[in-house]
Amino acid sequence: QSNVTIYGRLNTSLESTKVQGSSRVTQLVNNNSRIGFRGNEDLGSGLAAIFQMESGFNSDAGGGTLAGRDTWVGLKGNLGTVKLGNITSPLYYATHDYISLHNHDTGNSSDMFLWVPAYDPENFRNRNSITYASPSFGGFVVEAHYSLVNEQGTETATRNDKPYHYSLTGTYDNGPLHVGFGFGETKKFYNFAGGDSKDNALILSALYDFKSVVVGGLWERNKSDNGGLEAQTGLTGSHTRNHYRVAVMVPFGANEVHLNYGVARDWSSTNDTGAKQLTLAYNYNLSKRTKVYALWTKVDNDKQKVSTDFGGAYDGGGAYSFLSGSAAGLDNTSFGVGLRHNF
Amino acid sequence: QSNVTIYGRLNTSLESTKVQGSSRVTQLVNNNSRIGFRGNEDLGSGLAAIFQMESGFNSDAGGGTLAGRDTWVGLKGNLGTVKLGNITSPLYYATHDYISLHNHDTGNSSDMFLWVPAYDPENFRNRNSITYASPSFGGFVVEAHYSLVNEQGTETATRNDKPYHYSLTGTYDNGPLHVGFGFGETKKFYNFAGGDSKDNALILSALYDFKSVVVGGLWERNKSDNGGLEAQTGLTGSHTRNHYRVAVMVPFGANEVHLNYGVARDWSSTNDTGAKQLTLAYNYNLSKRTKVYALWTKVDNDKQKVSTDFGGAYDGGGAYSFLSGSAAGLDNTSFGVGLRHNF
Amino acid sequence: QSNVTIYGRLNTSLESTKVQGSSRVTQLVNNNSRIGFRGNEDLGSGLAAIFQMESGFNSDAGGGTLAGRDTWVGLKGNLGTVKLGNITSPLYYATHDYISLHNHDTGNSSDMFLWVPAYDPENFRNRNSITYASPSFGGFVVEAHYSLVNEQGTETATRNDKPYHYSLTGTYDNGPLHVGFGFGETKKFYNFAGGDSKDNALILSALYDFKSVVVGGLWERNKSDNGGLEAQTGLTGSHTRNHYRVAVMVPFGANEVHLNYGVARDWSSTNDTGAKQLTLAYNYNLSKRTKVYALWTKVDNDKQKVSTDFGGAYDGGGAYSFLSGSAAGLDNTSFGVGLRHNF
Repeated sequence: QSNVTIYGRLNTSLESTKVQGSSRVTQLVNNNSRIGFRGNEDLGSGLAAIFQMESGFNSDAGGGTLAGRDTWVGLKGNLGTVKLGNITSPLYYATHDYISLHNHDTGNSSDMFLWVPAYDPENFRNRNSITYASPSFGGFVVEAHYSLVNEQGTETATRNDKPYHYSLTGTYDNGPLHVGFGFGETKKFYNFAGGDSKDNALILSALYDFKSVVVGGLWERNKSDNGGLEAQTGLTGSHTRNHYRVAVMVPFGANEVHLNYGVARDWSSTNDTGAKQLTLAYNYNLSKRTKVYALWTKVDNDKQKVSTDFGGAYDGGGAYSFLSGSAAGLDNTSFGVGLRHNF
Repeated sequence: QSNVTIYGRLNTSLESTKVQGSSRVTQLVNNNSRIGFRGNEDLGSGLAAIFQMESGFNSDAGGGTLAGRDTWVGLKGNLGTVKLGNITSPLYYATHDYISLHNHDTGNSSDMFLWVPAYDPENFRNRNSITYASPSFGGFVVEAHYSLVNEQGTETATRNDKPYHYSLTGTYDNGPLHVGFGFGETKKFYNFAGGDSKDNALILSALYDFKSVVVGGLWERNKSDNGGLEAQTGLTGSHTRNHYRVAVMVPFGANEVHLNYGVARDWSSTNDTGAKQLTLAYNYNLSKRTKVYALWTKVDNDKQKVSTDFGGAYDGGGAYSFLSGSAAGLDNTSFGVGLRHNF
Repeated sequence: QSNVTIYGRLNTSLESTKVQGSSRVTQLVNNNSRIGFRGNEDLGSGLAAIFQMESGFNSDAGGGTLAGRDTWVGLKGNLGTVKLGNITSPLYYATHDYISLHNHDTGNSSDMFLWVPAYDPENFRNRNSITYASPSFGGFVVEAHYSLVNEQGTETATRNDKPYHYSLTGTYDNGPLHVGFGFGETKKFYNFAGGDSKDNALILSALYDFKSVVVGGLWERNKSDNGGLEAQTGLTGSHTRNHYRVAVMVPFGANEVHLNYGVARDWSSTNDTGAKQLTLAYNYNLSKRTKVYALWTKVDNDKQKVSTDFGGAYDGGGAYSFLSGSAAGLDNTSFGVGLRHNF
């Protein structure tokens, strides 16, 4: 039917994964496969109705959640775009996503240190959200995101603590240059038990396409006041952290060579709580829609290993790990090959 | 693919909702958003195979149930239409739906007093159903609906009590006039614990389109013998109730002004068990498929507040309420704005 | 959208079902209804990217699992086809499926004695699978299937026991003749508690289309070492079983008359553990895509009734039965009419 476009992606990799001290595991990995339906209707005078309903599914093992990914309805016009629904924080798309050139923060090679406070911290997505994106002013776009409390897993039983989540971002796209920055904050908003929590992130990213090489980087400053950090690691009180990341892509013909390196510094007043992550990858584009790739990624946790963020396959034990149920503070490596097909 | 049509609706509103005695809540509300797939195949001689698979999803918070809404396969011919599957009672479509002109009994402005006995009382939908609809005889159509016991949440552990659900309806559509009537009854059929229950509803509705104004109304008589009423309210024994409703729409250009008023009278032999509901709404049709709207709705419960029906956001505590977990017998109001897009 | 094809099937029957000693039940039956999305992209040089995402749903009662049926992404070229994902064992498609002419092993008339060892024994489907299918050599195709351990419900808590599942099949298709054979084995791989289990199946099938009649048959030899048989029936130790089946179809015009007969012999060293199954069916093809049918099927269990396999509506109590919760060792019959529509 002309009203609806079906789109999606299957991205499945075969990887050999090892957590320090445990046996090596050979596994299939689903890298955020999804199917969606979207459409727009021209309403005249530059106005359009737009919608999207997107569902994630496991390309390796089956199963999924209907409308579990970004699902919204909105209006787009000369004054900007408004959307209502279950929406990923623009803080992610303005910064991290732009420099995640290899596999867009999916699977084991995703940025393990990114910390976008949100109700669903693994996906930086918030229920009951309203977003406004400005039109482009010569490449510059501002976006605001606010999430209502209802149906969120707020920490508090009463509605009197006024939990909230919001983020504000600005992006500039002009030819080879991209710059993005943003700030997001939550108060008593997470999907886990906790006290009087508040978390925020301030992120600045930039990317430049030199044609023979694409270089991007970001700086992120996180603060946790009895927030997600405490719930995850037991590190109480107020702490801040800096996170740096650089991404380099060398394209030639259908080939791409990728290098990503991220450093999470120690949380303030707490030694040995940082970590480093290195990813090397090679992509071969069989077409614009289909690629095969190889990847090698390693996370080098400091001995107290509390550098963990909300992203990726967080194992609930305080340390980022590629396998669930692992003990804390261990290094992780994974390598393998994958196939990604967009439709 | 030519065989299948994708269709659906997103309907999301931003509302300020208040239950007497509790704090006001600002929320996004999903008004029965859905996506479906349907098709028909011409088999010759006026016969066609028809099917539908429809899934509801939360346009505000994500998540949904695959094939959770009307899903069936059937045959349509000169002698009528037969369908097998999970099907909404025709009793709803013949009467209530026809006069629910503003938002078709979705969200907080839906008719809180409607009582269509069914396995899934919130949606008047029955599993394992067979329906037959006659061809149109000069605008007159008869429909019969019968639901088999298997996979229903029947109240009884044994199959000897012969639980059943059926409904019979007649509708007449001719130019500006619509008349609908029907009767439905269930015995030991509900999706909750209970005794030797039986519930029924007799409904008569009519609507006339005067062009400058559309006026509709219905009368419904409900009877509960140790049935859903008891399970919901504790009101034991056999009771009957009358319910009246009127709906007025004034269209001018792309605008529609709506007024709905419903009265549920006391259940027999029990004072102060009625309620009133008033809804005022304004719709602006951006196109045939897209509208923005504003609504204000109030439910005025009598002090014993057992007027509750199965419809709407029933909170399980005996009283209809816009918010779950509210104490009984309180008034409810909600107002806000919404966006509805059909695709 | 040209990239994606929507396809699927609704198959719903109305049946009268009786288990010996219990009351007769009239029910709607869902015969493996499904909806899927698939596509392929020509990558040049005979290579193509291919994918499928298929979801089963209950055509009788609603509900379903997103991506719960075969869901994979792969590459197809001159050297064969590779797929990664949640995939039905080729052992089933090479043998049983080919001779299941009436309703393709769905619903009550499916082959109750088939035993294809797999993680999901009701559907012979394995998560995290890799399959390779050779190109056709004059009608001859070889297929290999291997399932990785992760996300399977392996019996063991540790990864040191090296659980596995694999199958190997060969098929030959040439004009009216089809021959298929295969072997599949699992070790500590099932989705239920158990000891040091191992199960395998060796199957040989053949079918010939004489035009006026189509005749097919298969022989299957099963072995269970403290495996699925023990978990299902309590029959401990190592046992083998032979299973024979014949299928006959007589087509004339739009009509088909079907006869299926299967015999499961006693498990070794254990008398009275066999069973017989007879199915008679009549199909009338309203078109290539739509049929109506009638069926009568009976399972005659020996008194110890442990002939049960993993297929069909296994009731968990050791005996195959059309209704859950039935006592063991009883005969089952079901007859009725159905409507199947492919889209």
